[in-house]
Amino acid sequence: MPKGQPSRVPDDGLTTRQRRNRPLLMVHTGDGKGKSSAAFGLALRGWNQGWRIGVFQFVKSAKWRIGEQTVLERLGRLHEETGEGGPVEWHKMGSGWSWSRKQGDEVDHASAAVEGWHEITRRLAEERHDLLILDEFTYPMGWGWVDVDEVVDVLTHRPGHQHVVITGRRADPRLIDAADLVTEMAKVKHPMDAGQKGQRGIEW
Amino acid sequence: MPKGQPSRVPDDGLTTRQRRNRPLLMVHTGDGKGKSSAAFGLALRGWNQGWRIGVFQFVKSAKWRIGEQTVLERLGRLHEETGEGGPVEWHKMGSGWSWSRKQGDEVDHASAAVEGWHEITRRLAEERHDLLILDEFTYPMGWGWVDVDEVVDVLTHRPGHQHVVITGRRADPRLIDAADLVTEMAKVKHPMDAGQKGQRGIEW
Repeated sequence: MPKGQPSRVPDDGLTTRQRRNRPLLMVHTGDGKGKSSAAFGLALRGWNQGWRIGVFQFVKSAKWRIGEQTVLERLGRLHEETGEGGPVEWHKMGSGWSWSRKQGDEVDHASAAVEGWHEITRRLAEERHDLLILDEFTYPMGWGWVDVDEVVDVLTHRPGHQHVVITGRRADPRLIDAADLVTEMAKVKHPMDAGQKGQRGIEW
Repeated sequence: MPKGQPSRVPDDGLTTRQRRNRPLLMVHTGDGKGKSSAAFGLALRGWNQGWRIGVFQFVKSAKWRIGEQTVLERLGRLHEETGEGGPVEWHKMGSGWSWSRKQGDEVDHASAAVEGWHEITRRLAEERHDLLILDEFTYPMGWGWVDVDEVVDVLTHRPGHQHVVITGRRADPRLIDAADLVTEMAKVKHPMDAGQKGQRGIEW
């Protein structure tokens, strides 16, 4: 998208620079592909700026997005080895979060989602990351596992300069209201409609 | 997006495996953000599969997407150094393509776009890449600098197993017809609407 001029200048008492550098709450929603890929594309850019990247995947399968995880964690190790870019942490719910003692069959997904959200709340308070990607987080919000009003409140009042991207279908209207940037990825055409199943490198 | 079942099985004489592994022509269009970021997110996954990635940026500014370029080229060097992932080539039109002798002020953008497309045609015939990203390529198509029917013909008949992603607004209906996967990134809300200009790490 070409860099443009804002369509109006708001009466919010901020200078252009303050407004420009305001941290963003971004939502990628809709039924089409690219919601998470676009978030990880943004992580590339952020890593290159030296940002501390934190990915929190609210998914059940540990295999999901293994390609992106491998590469972003590799970039994190590159940062440790050479100082290039920024540090990367990738946590997935899968069969229990990596910081949790609960693993495998004993995990209750609703409780795990709540635990993930509590950890994110703590990290936001501590300003641990410059970019947080809460991948597929609309689902635990939609299923009522985490309280939408609480999520919106915590995100709206997060301190410092922390960008947050939330991905997933059916984003709650309250989240969309609170967000600065919302893109809907709409499915125009998908190979599954023509009988083609997902394939390596494209879907995972 | 969860892995699903196809909604119907086509009568195309292909086995499920053949159909699954069919190379895809993908289009990311629409007025919203994330079209290119999602393509570069896909490149992460492809790189991790060892794919040979080729990015061709049909943009005028050499500064555009410098973050993504830096990181993907870094991954390309990592491949050369360690054998991890796959090789990466990134070419941008900017003030002349890197393979061209014409540089700087003498560049005519329409001619440069045609030259870029001819190079891509040659590379497709030679099967030089496993994933080609033609970033912002809808614009030279829309401006009539390259012939849409020719582009669709070359892409439809490309040999081997080459995935292609084309990004940009206002994709031609003939391109959408020919594509296997089309996502429209629709703008629901953008910070510029609230008077916020683009910022480092988010827009570039």
